Amino acid sequence: MTMILRFAPPSPFARKVRIAASVLDLSDQITLETTDLNDPAETLRVQNPLGKIPALVLDDGTALYDSSVIVQYLDTLAGGVRIIPPSGMARFQVLRQEALADGLMDAGVLQVYEGRYRPAELHHQPWLDRQAGKVARALAAIAADPPPLDEPPHIGAIATACALGYLDFRFSGDWRAGNPGLVAWLERFEAAVPAYAQTAPE
Amino acid sequence: MTMILRFAPPSPFARKVRIAASVLDLSDQITLETTDLNDPAETLRVQNPLGKIPALVLDDGTALYDSSVIVQYLDTLAGGVRIIPPSGMARFQVLRQEALADGLMDAGVLQVYEGRYRPAELHHQPWLDRQAGKVARALAAIAADPPPLDEPPHIGAIATACALGYLDFRFSGDWRAGNPGLVAWLERFEAAVPAYAQTAPE
Repeated sequence: MTMILRFAPPSPFARKVRIAASVLDLSDQITLETTDLNDPAETLRVQNPLGKIPALVLDDGTALYDSSVIVQYLDTLAGGVRIIPPSGMARFQVLRQEALADGLMDAGVLQVYEGRYRPAELHHQPWLDRQAGKVARALAAIAADPPPLDEPPHIGAIATACALGYLDFRFSGDWRAGNPGLVAWLERFEAAVPAYAQTAPE
Repeated sequence: MTMILRFAPPSPFARKVRIAASVLDLSDQITLETTDLNDPAETLRVQNPLGKIPALVLDDGTALYDSSVIVQYLDTLAGGVRIIPPSGMARFQVLRQEALADGLMDAGVLQVYEGRYRPAELHHQPWLDRQAGKVARALAAIAADPPPLDEPPHIGAIATACALGYLDFRFSGDWRAGNPGLVAWLERFEAAVPAYAQTAPE
């Protein structure tokens, strides 16, 4: 089976999927294909009507999204329960960690979009502050209770690493100053998971 | 076990959880508790650092989010695989339908937030159009291939009904004019699932 992952190098949600695929030894079954949403003929909008990456296109043309659904699919494809615990509170703790990291990324993305999709005179600081507050609270919660670094890493840890990597990429790594424990956590993750460095945005 | 669901009546994501709980016969184990995010002491921000509803608070204080994680948890609590197929493409089709409906709701919410969190002179029509485009494409995709109405309804159908209900609530039901098949689909859903009418926003 060959699958196509529609992605963009800066997307933290696509990075999460790419790291999950690597950890699950599925990378060689996945062809990466970038998107160009400025092109009206961009097929991503047919594959995912929401026009969002990542989307995973299967052999028969079926497209899966969003990133958590893709990760669940890949985990199943790899035999199951390798990066998502099968049941019990262990499963829901991990899925909650993923949701927290995803929410941090969403709030970061909305701040980036303010600059990308809105002229400067229409920026609204209270909206940016609102999103920054979500990032700050999520970061504090993660720092207080970082996901365990299992081998292989579970999706809660992978998503958390991608969230921190996104803050490095788009917010100058400002999070590092106040969070030495989390910096050390990310270094341990990076040492254990080569795909993290391999998927770093430029 | 008693659980607390932090919610607001207009939230389509909370409505999805409430309907799922009803379908799974778990409603009497869940206490509904509204939130007031204008109150700086609002505990939701501790329960979910993202400050988002719904959040499900368990007996021991553990809070679960987002809505899809809560639904997976409730399904497991009810014995499992009642509203989410256990495996195979059936599972991922349903989770993809849920993600599409959730994405439609997200794009709708961002349009509502433009009015709620930004003064009129800072509104930006291209941003609104961008979100409206996501809603329109998602709606067209759902109309072309509505989720099957199983008994009990699966989470793809529940989420789809909540997405259409949100368009009724916030966008004057404009979607109805061009989509008679989907209107009929929603009528069948409503007849089969009493919780849909019971959770309708005012």
